[in-house]
Amino acid sequence: MDSSSGVQFAASVPFLIEALQLTGTFVFAVSGAILGMQRGLDIFGVLVLAFVTAVFGGVIRDLMIGAIPPEAIASWHALAIALIAGLLTFYGLGLLEKVKEPVQLFDAVGLALFAVAGTQKALAYGVMPVMAAVLGMISGIGGGMLRDVLVVRMPIVLYADIYAVAALAAALVVAFGSALAVPPLPAALLGVVLCVTLRVLAIYRGWRLPSSARSEPEP
Amino acid sequence: MDSSSGVQFAASVPFLIEALQLTGTFVFAVSGAILGMQRGLDIFGVLVLAFVTAVFGGVIRDLMIGAIPPEAIASWHALAIALIAGLLTFYGLGLLEKVKEPVQLFDAVGLALFAVAGTQKALAYGVMPVMAAVLGMISGIGGGMLRDVLVVRMPIVLYADIYAVAALAAALVVAFGSALAVPPLPAALLGVVLCVTLRVLAIYRGWRLPSSARSEPEP
Amino acid sequence: MDSSSGVQFAASVPFLIEALQLTGTFVFAVSGAILGMQRGLDIFGVLVLAFVTAVFGGVIRDLMIGAIPPEAIASWHALAIALIAGLLTFYGLGLLEKVKEPVQLFDAVGLALFAVAGTQKALAYGVMPVMAAVLGMISGIGGGMLRDVLVVRMPIVLYADIYAVAALAAALVVAFGSALAVPPLPAALLGVVLCVTLRVLAIYRGWRLPSSARSEPEP
Repeated sequence: MDSSSGVQFAASVPFLIEALQLTGTFVFAVSGAILGMQRGLDIFGVLVLAFVTAVFGGVIRDLMIGAIPPEAIASWHALAIALIAGLLTFYGLGLLEKVKEPVQLFDAVGLALFAVAGTQKALAYGVMPVMAAVLGMISGIGGGMLRDVLVVRMPIVLYADIYAVAALAAALVVAFGSALAVPPLPAALLGVVLCVTLRVLAIYRGWRLPSSARSEPEP
Repeated sequence: MDSSSGVQFAASVPFLIEALQLTGTFVFAVSGAILGMQRGLDIFGVLVLAFVTAVFGGVIRDLMIGAIPPEAIASWHALAIALIAGLLTFYGLGLLEKVKEPVQLFDAVGLALFAVAGTQKALAYGVMPVMAAVLGMISGIGGGMLRDVLVVRMPIVLYADIYAVAALAAALVVAFGSALAVPPLPAALLGVVLCVTLRVLAIYRGWRLPSSARSEPEP
Repeated sequence: MDSSSGVQFAASVPFLIEALQLTGTFVFAVSGAILGMQRGLDIFGVLVLAFVTAVFGGVIRDLMIGAIPPEAIASWHALAIALIAGLLTFYGLGLLEKVKEPVQLFDAVGLALFAVAGTQKALAYGVMPVMAAVLGMISGIGGGMLRDVLVVRMPIVLYADIYAVAALAAALVVAFGSALAVPPLPAALLGVVLCVTLRVLAIYRGWRLPSSARSEPEP
């Protein structure tokens, strides 16, 4: 795929997906803000963690494919959404704790959309399918990994319920869909549905991957 | 602002600021070296931590705006300054501990200059004002964040006295000064004075931002 | 050195070195996988840690010199090798633990080759010798540093036996060999031999650098 057709490919991603990706940004920012509050950060630390969690995955992807400056810097949208999410969390955490299940569901949707959109963008920049899927997965999990590293705990995605795998599954559907000339929209939808389904099953049925140890790492 | 006028803008930053920025590099390197020694690192680990602390904030900024290779690699100045700072600290820590207050003051000046110069550079590369201010703040706090992550503690800027906020304040003055066509030098001076004042007041009066918890994270 | 002669310089690095560098990728991936298993990660977390350990040093270097996308994304070789290494480790750890000494030796060779090849690539992109050597060293130690940060321990290279220094020694030989117009192959060989020798002596004779504390950081 040459660069100009790649750009057309990206442009064909519909408005709906962009809106949902901003929803993902919001949900990821909330997860960063909640963790920051649990660790006793001040309001500014909470906002920094919210922003970082929301955008870091995409920043890695953009640096890797040469999309400079990264989306999170080129536009103020993610910053604004992360700040709103952080402030709402800081001043209304009680509310959010009551809606844990919806948050996990939103998070699954956010993860799926980040993975799908990240893969599409990497393909649009000419990355080969399998590595585009890796970058799509990183778009989905990178923010949460940095969030965890910053509060000095092992990134949850490395050991918890099927999470990175769900992101990778969505990314692979998009990547190989593109390689097989499947139109982008159905491939994206299939990827999102697959990722969300895997996440929901992992949460409600306790699905885990085979692990190398009995003991759990402390959270 | 187009790219060529941006470069002129950067060129108008006077020699004085560059000299002060190198002072900031030195002070940041000392803070990395001191922490490394407290954790029992060997001389090489201390030097690595000194260098990383001094340059990482600028490296993130440069990667984000496409200034490749980053300043810290394109020139040997920061490396040389960080090595000197690290060696002086390693072989004369007693001396430096006696001058803690001056070090905190230098650090405030270093922070201010990194934030101001970082914002100016981001503007010069065509980043919009508010995101240029974010990159300026990151230039100021990024090195200290990586320093803390490497010795496995939560980055101080996330919870301690007003620090990142002071950097952001300076950065915003520069960014909106530029947007309002204020000449760069007075805006830079105002930003530096504002940041240093905020830091000094935070240190001596114990100013803190509202926090989400009673307890402090352990240092 | 202009860009085109730089590319010729890189092309003159023989096939042997590439093969050995892939060996280094394998060994580094094994070290990441072993650590992941010790921390009780699931199979996917182990593979992620294996991949990250194997490629992160090179990714930093490539981002810094503008080699976009980084080698680890532009080609699937490192991913494939890391996955194979991770799977072999996960399903046959007992075997690998019996061969600890060979693993340490392979690791020394991997480190040397990463440092040498990283320096050569940085030179080929026009980085000045001393900073090219720094990037070469980072190519060698960056992956292990991120591996350690992700499992929440202080990076071993900051305090353990001569490791980063051995990488830097190899890198400096290549960098100054190039500056003095020594042909690349003998300089590379000398660098590799020097790095491996230093590592082996450090391991078997317990060589350490002067440290700032009595106590060891906990592993």
